[in-house]
Amino acid sequence: MNASVDGHYLALSGGVGGAKLALGLSHCVPAEQLTIVANTADDFQHYGLHIAPDLDTVMYTLAALSNQELGWGLAGETWQFLEAMERLGEPTWFRLGDRDLATHVFRTSRLAAAATLAEVTAELCQRLNIGPRILPMTNDPVSTQVLTDEGRLGFQDYFVRRQCEPAVSGFEFAGIEQAQPLPELMAALEDPQLRAVVICPSNPFVSIDPILGLPGVRIAIRNTAAPVIAISPIVAGLAIKGPAAKMMAELGIPVTAAAVAEYYEGLIDCFVVDESDATLAPMIETENMSVAVRPTIMKSLDDRVSLGQAVLALAEELT
Amino acid sequence: MNASVDGHYLALSGGVGGAKLALGLSHCVPAEQLTIVANTADDFQHYGLHIAPDLDTVMYTLAALSNQELGWGLAGETWQFLEAMERLGEPTWFRLGDRDLATHVFRTSRLAAAATLAEVTAELCQRLNIGPRILPMTNDPVSTQVLTDEGRLGFQDYFVRRQCEPAVSGFEFAGIEQAQPLPELMAALEDPQLRAVVICPSNPFVSIDPILGLPGVRIAIRNTAAPVIAISPIVAGLAIKGPAAKMMAELGIPVTAAAVAEYYEGLIDCFVVDESDATLAPMIETENMSVAVRPTIMKSLDDRVSLGQAVLALAEELT
Repeated sequence: MNASVDGHYLALSGGVGGAKLALGLSHCVPAEQLTIVANTADDFQHYGLHIAPDLDTVMYTLAALSNQELGWGLAGETWQFLEAMERLGEPTWFRLGDRDLATHVFRTSRLAAAATLAEVTAELCQRLNIGPRILPMTNDPVSTQVLTDEGRLGFQDYFVRRQCEPAVSGFEFAGIEQAQPLPELMAALEDPQLRAVVICPSNPFVSIDPILGLPGVRIAIRNTAAPVIAISPIVAGLAIKGPAAKMMAELGIPVTAAAVAEYYEGLIDCFVVDESDATLAPMIETENMSVAVRPTIMKSLDDRVSLGQAVLALAEELT
Repeated sequence: MNASVDGHYLALSGGVGGAKLALGLSHCVPAEQLTIVANTADDFQHYGLHIAPDLDTVMYTLAALSNQELGWGLAGETWQFLEAMERLGEPTWFRLGDRDLATHVFRTSRLAAAATLAEVTAELCQRLNIGPRILPMTNDPVSTQVLTDEGRLGFQDYFVRRQCEPAVSGFEFAGIEQAQPLPELMAALEDPQLRAVVICPSNPFVSIDPILGLPGVRIAIRNTAAPVIAISPIVAGLAIKGPAAKMMAELGIPVTAAAVAEYYEGLIDCFVVDESDATLAPMIETENMSVAVRPTIMKSLDDRVSLGQAVLALAEELT
């Protein structure tokens, strides 16, 4: 902990990759100085339950409950519920574990009792002893639609059921124009004490874009005096996790950290690439966007904390 | 199977004891000739899920999925979900198993999609390959309230959380006046092909009374030409399962099969007592109600089938 830091840090995150950096950051600043905003455009209803995969991944990661072997879900997970669902002839492509189910049942029950998604998330975080504030990007429904050569697919349908196989031609975020960004997100962006906005190494198209696309968010990020730092989810032409690289290829975008930087250009002040992409740095740098070369691959907790510290140091330099 | 039997049999059942006889009957008549109506006044909402304990007990018993060791729930049950709920600080007095949960999640989801409880029950039975028709007594909410020395308690609150400890002074079935008995139940009672109404050895106060108390049911049972046969849930002054004996004592009713017979008097044509209560038979018999002495304790499947056969034989004699 670096207790001498004051002000406030805001991290925008999707699932696994973003959650790793969020965990790293949580080891570098006092809990009350860190807010993590998670994408909720992947949320969906399954068996009548409200499932929020990115929120849960961030929560489970920060609560040290995440399943290291699977790379998703909860440690020590079991699958008896899903087996029973299979016996009932229900679809089981979405792997809902017995422990994970508690989160969804709790959330669904609270939402049915008129709690907001942010309120339920705060309750879950409190009960799981999570220090930093975790916020859904919005309390309103936003639903990522993946436009593919097999037609329009809901995100989980594309991602889990179809295993990202269909070729992607674009995305739509149903409901985004009507959705209100969470007031706490806007307040954090407008807070003069804001010390940095960190765009975690998450999928730019389906994890970060829905957050940025909420009415007023992009302009609030542009307007903040705090530095905006994005970490490349593409390392040496590959995505560390998930379909980002495959999507880029299908969208006709070069699969490079440089292309991600270009995607964020005009919004961010600093782009962080991995050491293996050091040679790209001079080509990416623009008048308004610096490039930092750092080790960004986060295998161990130490890696996560180191990258968190590097990002905070960059924020300090850029201020 | 006795394929020569025609007509139709109707069994009224609560949970475990009733389900045992229902299973026995299902071995004695073709599936399409047996309808089992389960009490739903024990149903309640827990974690936002619709739980129907008696319906599920009957279903699981007929699907040969019931847990023989516990005496309730599903065989091979596990408790990961409940542990995770406990970690979230949620109450865990109602033991929802991981497998059992599939039934509740499926039911809740279908009810939310405007299916009736009877429709969901039919879907579940079809998916679990259950032959006989299982019906909820009503699609409408009826809720048993137990009046006790600790005040008014919801049935599961009394039965599971408080382990039947509070002394009972009476019962109320909230919603029963407004509830419509299931049309299929009324149709079965009015069917000239009805061969018998079997009141299973279930708790008269909290399992059978709610069925009988639905508008029109008691009179339809009185009006049917078919014999109405009740099996005593009290054997040698004890309840085989559940709080019936304790309730009778607290209500100031002698804890005897004779008192149960008196409770049903005017409604039934024949009362079946266990062999251990043979000496009571002459005292119970009235002009309009015969008494049969049979082995009613159902430890094995053979016991269940034997009692089923005995009941069907009595129905034949009484016709």
